[in-house]
Amino acid sequence: MITSLISHPGSTEPVAEKASGPSAGAGQIVVDLIASAVNPFDLAVASGAARGPVGLTGPVGLGWDVTGVVREIGAGVTRFAVGDTVAAIHPDLAAPSRAHAEQVLLEESWAAHLPDGLDPVAGASIPLNALTAAQALAMLGPADGRDLLVTGAAGAVGGYAVALASAAGWRVVAFARAADEEFVRSAGAEELVTELVPGSVDAVLDAAALREAAMTAVRDDGAFVGVLPIAPTPPVRGITSEDVFVQPDPVALADLLARSASGELAVRISGSRPLAEGATAYRQVASGGQRGRLLLVP
Amino acid sequence: MITSLISHPGSTEPVAEKASGPSAGAGQIVVDLIASAVNPFDLAVASGAARGPVGLTGPVGLGWDVTGVVREIGAGVTRFAVGDTVAAIHPDLAAPSRAHAEQVLLEESWAAHLPDGLDPVAGASIPLNALTAAQALAMLGPADGRDLLVTGAAGAVGGYAVALASAAGWRVVAFARAADEEFVRSAGAEELVTELVPGSVDAVLDAAALREAAMTAVRDDGAFVGVLPIAPTPPVRGITSEDVFVQPDPVALADLLARSASGELAVRISGSRPLAEGATAYRQVASGGQRGRLLLVP
Repeated sequence: MITSLISHPGSTEPVAEKASGPSAGAGQIVVDLIASAVNPFDLAVASGAARGPVGLTGPVGLGWDVTGVVREIGAGVTRFAVGDTVAAIHPDLAAPSRAHAEQVLLEESWAAHLPDGLDPVAGASIPLNALTAAQALAMLGPADGRDLLVTGAAGAVGGYAVALASAAGWRVVAFARAADEEFVRSAGAEELVTELVPGSVDAVLDAAALREAAMTAVRDDGAFVGVLPIAPTPPVRGITSEDVFVQPDPVALADLLARSASGELAVRISGSRPLAEGATAYRQVASGGQRGRLLLVP
Repeated sequence: MITSLISHPGSTEPVAEKASGPSAGAGQIVVDLIASAVNPFDLAVASGAARGPVGLTGPVGLGWDVTGVVREIGAGVTRFAVGDTVAAIHPDLAAPSRAHAEQVLLEESWAAHLPDGLDPVAGASIPLNALTAAQALAMLGPADGRDLLVTGAAGAVGGYAVALASAAGWRVVAFARAADEEFVRSAGAEELVTELVPGSVDAVLDAAALREAAMTAVRDDGAFVGVLPIAPTPPVRGITSEDVFVQPDPVALADLLARSASGELAVRISGSRPLAEGATAYRQVASGGQRGRLLLVP
């Protein structure tokens, strides 16, 4: 039996339950948990707020991010062997057990090897937020001399977006609190702004989901990428508007893990707690104010 | 065989398909379609944008709003008889066929009788948006002398919110374009504003999903209700922050339909198109600029 955090209809907190350990089917792996980050999306499912929009009616597992050691591989799995250390996202919102569990069932295509030099506990903070930032940035195309405003630039997705955009040749303007200037500059921002200036940049990556307010900062015929695909921001003034929703991508994930291992991308964690104390951990994240991800460990 | 609009993974438009007509199980009814409105949420599913966040992996039906004539009732159904005209929402995002279909399978609890004096085609514009507005307003409690800012006050949800709040005794301030002043005043707004003034109102009903930008308008210790439960707006300055996600409520729906029939709530439709031309209808809604809902008819 394993412990897994489950969200039940009508409950507002995750419940730590005992369940049978999963078995790997064709193309799947099972990992023993090293660590799993608590993300805002997890809180929205566990509180019940996301149940309606996401169409969840019964009990479901929780958790997107995971690092673990492969304990079983299914038929046809070629990239991993038992004993490998991997990082992954678990994108199946309706699965009965997800990443906040002692054993996690993953599709091979959701995972990448954890590189040397990256702490396997801290590595669980990376997959969801870094992939989201990378995929949002990819929607904007090559930098090509343009400037990019990143909202929520000191946040989890925004911090990765600043660093990835800067490395890709964008001139990055960070929208963040003045107190975060040191962090956003170290991530690669050339400028910090604390107010949105209409029409001031070629593109916006709206990691803080400010939507229309952030759209105002884009020049006519510029580009906007948001993070709320079920509530896209209406385009105006010839601006293109798209929204990212994270997709598994083992090649991109391997690259992001390598860049975290090298120090190019900052790894930010606020602490760790036992999986069995999930409800307490969720309350801690919900109370806000942490910098970096809180990690659940066995 | 019936025609039903289906969203397929990888497709960006609804596909009109032939399917077997549904049968009513216990507590269910089947209606022959009179009309079904196209809502932004339908577009987000059909375009693929909402598939990830909503956890939809296979083909799914489309459509929330429906009016129809009962053709079959299941065991235990007591409120409806064959031949009754009803209005309903279809809230099951994962169902293989939903409200954009020639026959629609509904739980009895999703539907209410259509009152005399309400056009059964136009009535299909009401359920989703009016219920959303009513349930958002209920989250704010009694008016108790307070003033309420409604964002998107000339929009579908916002228009209902202005009228319902005004009738409930709130002093309603409408945030809308100046060109919409006549509409929002006729709905019950005492004032139209075109800029958000910090701390200016007791409460905000953020039908336009402006989120943080709209939160600024709330006074310290006030109240905020949004419409994006998977991306709630963080509370600040002692303000409470909740988000509505529509739930079936046959009693509230009957009340809203009666108030539409009496003229207390404005019924706004932009036109109608045959169900078989669903893709064209969706493109028309996506192009924007319509006032009122576009309706699909058999």
